[in-house]
Amino acid sequence: MRLLDEQALRDIATGSAVLGTGGGGDPYLGTLVAVRALEQYGPMKLVTADELDDEAMVVYPFVIGSPVPLIEKFPLGKEMVQAYETLNRFLHGRVQAVMPIEIGGINSMVPFFIAGRLGIPVVDGDCMGRAYPEAQLVTLTLHGIGASPFAIADERGNSVVLHSVSNSWAERFARSISIDMGAICAGAAYPVTGKQVRAAAVLGSISYTERIGRAIREAHAAKQDAIAAILEVTRGFVIFRGKIVDVQRRTSKGWALGECVLEGMDGDEGARMAVRFQNENLVAIRDGEIVASVPDLITIMDAESGQAITTEHLRYGFRVVVLGIPCDPQWRTPAGVELGGPRHFHYDIDYVPLEQRFAAAGRADGRQASSV
Amino acid sequence: MRLLDEQALRDIATGSAVLGTGGGGDPYLGTLVAVRALEQYGPMKLVTADELDDEAMVVYPFVIGSPVPLIEKFPLGKEMVQAYETLNRFLHGRVQAVMPIEIGGINSMVPFFIAGRLGIPVVDGDCMGRAYPEAQLVTLTLHGIGASPFAIADERGNSVVLHSVSNSWAERFARSISIDMGAICAGAAYPVTGKQVRAAAVLGSISYTERIGRAIREAHAAKQDAIAAILEVTRGFVIFRGKIVDVQRRTSKGWALGECVLEGMDGDEGARMAVRFQNENLVAIRDGEIVASVPDLITIMDAESGQAITTEHLRYGFRVVVLGIPCDPQWRTPAGVELGGPRHFHYDIDYVPLEQRFAAAGRADGRQASSV
Repeated sequence: MRLLDEQALRDIATGSAVLGTGGGGDPYLGTLVAVRALEQYGPMKLVTADELDDEAMVVYPFVIGSPVPLIEKFPLGKEMVQAYETLNRFLHGRVQAVMPIEIGGINSMVPFFIAGRLGIPVVDGDCMGRAYPEAQLVTLTLHGIGASPFAIADERGNSVVLHSVSNSWAERFARSISIDMGAICAGAAYPVTGKQVRAAAVLGSISYTERIGRAIREAHAAKQDAIAAILEVTRGFVIFRGKIVDVQRRTSKGWALGECVLEGMDGDEGARMAVRFQNENLVAIRDGEIVASVPDLITIMDAESGQAITTEHLRYGFRVVVLGIPCDPQWRTPAGVELGGPRHFHYDIDYVPLEQRFAAAGRADGRQASSV
Repeated sequence: MRLLDEQALRDIATGSAVLGTGGGGDPYLGTLVAVRALEQYGPMKLVTADELDDEAMVVYPFVIGSPVPLIEKFPLGKEMVQAYETLNRFLHGRVQAVMPIEIGGINSMVPFFIAGRLGIPVVDGDCMGRAYPEAQLVTLTLHGIGASPFAIADERGNSVVLHSVSNSWAERFARSISIDMGAICAGAAYPVTGKQVRAAAVLGSISYTERIGRAIREAHAAKQDAIAAILEVTRGFVIFRGKIVDVQRRTSKGWALGECVLEGMDGDEGARMAVRFQNENLVAIRDGEIVASVPDLITIMDAESGQAITTEHLRYGFRVVVLGIPCDPQWRTPAGVELGGPRHFHYDIDYVPLEQRFAAAGRADGRQASSV
């Protein structure tokens, strides 16, 4: 068990935005959540999965919907408490710890809000090792673990509990309800035991985000290149450098859908890249060819600040670096690729791990990044 | 307490279709449900609200969705039991009786299926005295009684429980879920006490449908005019006679929406009537003027058989009689008109009770009907 201070929480929020692949909400909002909770409730407890009893009940509180309305309507007040408590009531009050369902600017931090408030620990890990736009896209699904009971609540006091026969059905119902609730709302689901966490979750991912966030912070302090520092920690690749020349974005079926088009610079002159997203970045297309795809992580970073840019903040004119970061190995199994790979999002291509395309050229490119 | 035999159930289903105002599903399907339940479980118990203890817990099981898919996908198997049992579990197993939420070919009969199976009584009454297309349009809403917990289930085994801050929110969530479940599913909601039933429900409406159904049956047996017999029992009016020349119908937002256009005959030559519906018939428009509207009942009857035609069965060429039947007095209060009147359905007119338009001419017309 470790107690987290404000610096740790800020690093976790910054690093989470990098692994959030454009989704998971604004890390600034995530930081606010965590710091406010810290001020109100004192230092947060982070435990490793190994510290959980086999039978300890763990649940996942999260924000569900499109990140766009998050800017105006922030579902982290009584509705988050209500979603959590609705689920905990179903579990006869047995919940002992919480855990992020995904890594992202907001959803990494939500469990700290609940944990601080209730004095329970956050487990170091999540269920994606990244952010994904659909609630069934979790490693728990690969292990046959169900999402139900799945509790949802809004700021008006409405709450809904789903019991679904599959995690895809839970996603479908939850998405409809989230649209009715104003495209964003609070959820709590996937009750698991400590034993299941150890077997099925992505372990250590909060520490991983903290290391990324710390690397960015220390690079800034030392006036070094933050991108290079991120590549070092994540073993990722620079897959494109350029300027945003177009952003198309629409909210449809409760998601932020769209495309960001980049014109190459700094070694990528003359080339174009399109990054398509559904809340999260899904594929990176260089001159018509998909060069990176889910389940690997694609993150658009501000070239100046070395901060991740979430899809709702992409704007014309930004100078950016597109990073590719290898996903958790669970996503690279046949079942993992089937669940969260390109075909799930209607891209009819075989998944090719990032390293196969970028290992030779990309590592060099990654090193070049140090000199930018 | 009365035990109902097959004849009684058949009369109730037939009469329910008349009060179902085009919605509430096919009475033939309703009859099948009731008769099958009778064969399986024996005679059904019907009790009056006066026989309920003040604290007796009563709930409303129903089918929710569009009547169109009902023809292919009939949600009266394990999903209806699951919806009921999900709600009953929330109520700690205290449910003692069931009651129809509305009067219609299917929803009048659904409680008999549950009641027969569980050996509990059906209460003689409902919450609309007609059918309405939205779950908040019940007299219970006029008395401040909430729909929650509101349980929904489908044939796959999915179930959802809503806790909403208003009955309109319950309707909104339930409609979205019903669409996800295939546009039709099973529900159970509005837990009330015996005391609340007596104060807030439409009492005696099952007996009322039975009287209507019996009148139709006896008229047929005596080779007399069934329409005249219905007018006698319901104190209703013939508001148009004609032939169906056009039917437009689409399923949108989970409802069957549309319009049926009639060309006048038998006294209405040269005139046209359009009946617009949202599952149920909402307004009757004669030569451009609304002559009848919700909350009063508008039912299209087959002129030959004297049977009500539900909106999903309207077809070009049918010779029909359009009936107007006065609604329950609760709907004629200012709050009742606001909840279930024409403006709720976006018709910007003041509600005029049927009798004010048809009492003089219409009664005579009603008598004329005897000679058809």
